[in-house]
Amino acid sequence: MKKIRLALGKRSYDIFIGAQEIKGLGRKLKALDLGTDAYILTNKLIKDKYGLLLKRVLLKEGFGCYFKLVADTEKSKSIATAAAVIKDIAGRDYKKRIFIIAFGGGVVGDLAGFVASVYKRGIPYLQVPTTLLAQVDSSIGGKTGVDLDAGKNLVGAFYQPRLVFSDIAFLKSLPLRQLKAGLAEVIKYSLIADKRLFVFLQNRYRDVLKRDPDVLKKIIYACSLIKADLVSEDEKEVLSKRTLLNFGHTLGHAIEAAGGFSLYNHGEAVALGMLSAIEMSRSLKLLKPEDARLAKRLIKLYGLPDKLKGVSLEKVINAHFHDKKFKGRKNRFVLLAAIGKAKVVSDISLDIVKEGLKSIS
Amino acid sequence: MKKIRLALGKRSYDIFIGAQEIKGLGRKLKALDLGTDAYILTNKLIKDKYGLLLKRVLLKEGFGCYFKLVADTEKSKSIATAAAVIKDIAGRDYKKRIFIIAFGGGVVGDLAGFVASVYKRGIPYLQVPTTLLAQVDSSIGGKTGVDLDAGKNLVGAFYQPRLVFSDIAFLKSLPLRQLKAGLAEVIKYSLIADKRLFVFLQNRYRDVLKRDPDVLKKIIYACSLIKADLVSEDEKEVLSKRTLLNFGHTLGHAIEAAGGFSLYNHGEAVALGMLSAIEMSRSLKLLKPEDARLAKRLIKLYGLPDKLKGVSLEKVINAHFHDKKFKGRKNRFVLLAAIGKAKVVSDISLDIVKEGLKSIS
Repeated sequence: MKKIRLALGKRSYDIFIGAQEIKGLGRKLKALDLGTDAYILTNKLIKDKYGLLLKRVLLKEGFGCYFKLVADTEKSKSIATAAAVIKDIAGRDYKKRIFIIAFGGGVVGDLAGFVASVYKRGIPYLQVPTTLLAQVDSSIGGKTGVDLDAGKNLVGAFYQPRLVFSDIAFLKSLPLRQLKAGLAEVIKYSLIADKRLFVFLQNRYRDVLKRDPDVLKKIIYACSLIKADLVSEDEKEVLSKRTLLNFGHTLGHAIEAAGGFSLYNHGEAVALGMLSAIEMSRSLKLLKPEDARLAKRLIKLYGLPDKLKGVSLEKVINAHFHDKKFKGRKNRFVLLAAIGKAKVVSDISLDIVKEGLKSIS
Repeated sequence: MKKIRLALGKRSYDIFIGAQEIKGLGRKLKALDLGTDAYILTNKLIKDKYGLLLKRVLLKEGFGCYFKLVADTEKSKSIATAAAVIKDIAGRDYKKRIFIIAFGGGVVGDLAGFVASVYKRGIPYLQVPTTLLAQVDSSIGGKTGVDLDAGKNLVGAFYQPRLVFSDIAFLKSLPLRQLKAGLAEVIKYSLIADKRLFVFLQNRYRDVLKRDPDVLKKIIYACSLIKADLVSEDEKEVLSKRTLLNFGHTLGHAIEAAGGFSLYNHGEAVALGMLSAIEMSRSLKLLKPEDARLAKRLIKLYGLPDKLKGVSLEKVINAHFHDKKFKGRKNRFVLLAAIGKAKVVSDISLDIVKEGLKSIS
């Protein structure tokens, strides 16, 4: 397997990327000495498909093994679900050496990480992401959280996993719409930090969409490397390093919220957010028109939405004012200075924001 | 005011100890630049007595100011209360620069710290403790948490405050039983780490119980210093430094639990736990009989309980097996090697534990 070390002092950990290598997880876990019993948070679909496989791997190394199912919807990211899971863990933790495996996509990963961060003031957990989005993004970096009515991820912690284990075998059965949602984040990485990845995504888009294993591994590795670097430089997002990962997300979150979190999934909303941010970058003369054109073209090439439908501009603009990352009343955007280069810009006029949004309406 | 710096790198903070100096809090806060709006978590009694005073101090420096009341019982340390408080904060956080003031005893402090640790993945908070127990112990060191049915503080985080402001003016109205509960922790500090404090507590017990301001300030300063040192050396209790603070607490927690958390308060249960641990130290020949006698005498001198009443030994022993700090199935106790010197001992035979408990039955 390919390995990336996310450097964070005592909280450093490895990210493994491979194909059909789940059998190796048992020994890796054994070496980490995280505990005696694995508490696997997952959903029914993943358990039915891969549960037995994971269980065998763990039992072989002598781990106890419990599965806990949560519904595979954003609704599972609630304080109520977290409380129920914590209660369940407390009931099973009689040996006092339980650890958590997040086995699923972003919902399961965020919830499991949050639960791990607060149960007994923190127990170990690892991420075994099963969606492309989770493999390239949410499983790495320790942002955990659940939602409030007032906003997504309003309750959470920065709490790093002890291992991330990305196996593309899990992507085989991923619905195309979810694969594309992950690809929106992949495109994001290329735009903010990796021109070579951008060119690769342009040239190989057919192979990507056909889920060619070597191509997928290459992509996941490239994205994980960028994320690991940014997290290791700015774990808690106090500098503006980690903020760069938010490219396309400011308006993306607003679009998701305006659509009631059902019209667009996260990746689709980010695609629309990126298109707007590219347009904003261009109209502020940060980005050359030709680069803006190429960037927009790549997003369309992957069949991601390029027009905002079923939700009004006003609603999106209103939602954007509630972004939890805005300090005081100043907005803050990540914009492009070139393909492969992003920067954080604060206090952008509403006219420019509207211009960005108009380009997708 | 006297000042102690708790050294924790970027998370270092000051502990202030004074008398009638609340007026100075506003400027200290201003200098820290924690935000624009103070969200004050407190209980009705404290708000009625000191709320207006605190409010004036904050308004004078231009802070916004909200009070949120929770019931002054351990029941407020629940996930449900935490969720309700978080929801309330989210509704008031329109300027996005809210910070929390824990204004009360241990319940308010633990709850406020936990809420601060998870809201938006962490916002600043400070501790303005109003009980002796909170001033010498729970307000310092960042252990935050709420309870589950399965055990106290099973959900929480290590999350440091940005300031601790201990004013003995708040102790004037503290009920005697609560004052004594705090004194149990004070005695603990002297036994584990400060022989001079021990002698002082012996000589001045009348002045202590009369709440002589200079004596109280001296005591709070001495205890805060010990705690700050141990926390700064071992923030997350992975070495056995911070564990020393648990002297009297292993059986103390078990006694509290066996009494349904109503028969004995925390300090009283710790007093009984210390008496048992002293006896255990003596019977293991770690502690000289004469030191054991003096240590026990001090606890009685302060009018703390010295006999377990209304709860059976069996119940206490059963409860002690559920201690969340035991790893695997090994127990772990803090015992005394001398007055002013403690050590951690694991895997103590049940006979010795019973001997300790018998000495208080």
